[in-house]
Amino acid sequence: MMRLALDQARAAAARGETPVGAIVYRDGIVIASGANRREIDRDPTAHAEVLALREAGRVLNSWRLEECSMAVTLEPCPMCAGALVNARVKRLVYGAADPKMGAVDSLHRLCTDPRFNHRLEVRGGLLAEECGDLLRAFFKARRGNEKIPKPGAE
Amino acid sequence: MMRLALDQARAAAARGETPVGAIVYRDGIVIASGANRREIDRDPTAHAEVLALREAGRVLNSWRLEECSMAVTLEPCPMCAGALVNARVKRLVYGAADPKMGAVDSLHRLCTDPRFNHRLEVRGGLLAEECGDLLRAFFKARRGNEKIPKPGAE
Repeated sequence: MMRLALDQARAAAARGETPVGAIVYRDGIVIASGANRREIDRDPTAHAEVLALREAGRVLNSWRLEECSMAVTLEPCPMCAGALVNARVKRLVYGAADPKMGAVDSLHRLCTDPRFNHRLEVRGGLLAEECGDLLRAFFKARRGNEKIPKPGAE
Repeated sequence: MMRLALDQARAAAARGETPVGAIVYRDGIVIASGANRREIDRDPTAHAEVLALREAGRVLNSWRLEECSMAVTLEPCPMCAGALVNARVKRLVYGAADPKMGAVDSLHRLCTDPRFNHRLEVRGGLLAEECGDLLRAFFKARRGNEKIPKPGAE
């Protein structure tokens, strides 16, 4: 599933978006996918995870995604970590850690906060190097090309 | 602006959704509005705040809402607090505190975390009683009517 998330991340990079991709799956079957579309959609909430959760809700005809898991190439930010809790997602697997905005392990632990009405099983660091390399290559290429507007880190 | 947010919250209640409403405004002018649509849209991310931020991005043709403020009837949850940070919103005014999921003052302080790349000015408790009464009346009515599916607290 992380390989499919990486494909989504590469698709985002090809559009000039910060390369982050996400897959929602259940029982080994892909339910929904998302790739960062913040720039193209002019939407501050259009992170890969939010788009995948919204699509999964449409596919399953419910906002409760209780038996679903998510694979995402970058540690979710506060918005996305909170969305995973709200959607009652069972399990989260992420690739690279995000020391600047990561809200699952790095800066906050929103997915495992015992005070919330739902918690996720979390595994970080899956294919972390490959996921991180994609981000580093994207930002390095952008620094060499002033024509692409700077969106800030995902 | 909080009165307009309350109108949105009432509109949500009329559809059977947890009554939360949000307004995005700039220089005293309404840019966008949102009312909770989680049930009707089968969308775990369709909280009032996220919908208002997405609409504001479309209206202003940018995901950066740097000169914008938000008024919302309930203290934002982690997802919505994170979305406000991501959108670079300048100022947040909320009504009732949320001791169960509030991520601005109650359980976390995501909108003022100095480690993030953006922080908001925050004022809580505006028309708090009226905002809270609307929620309490909604949940009380729902407990008396088993026919309405239970969506859980916003």
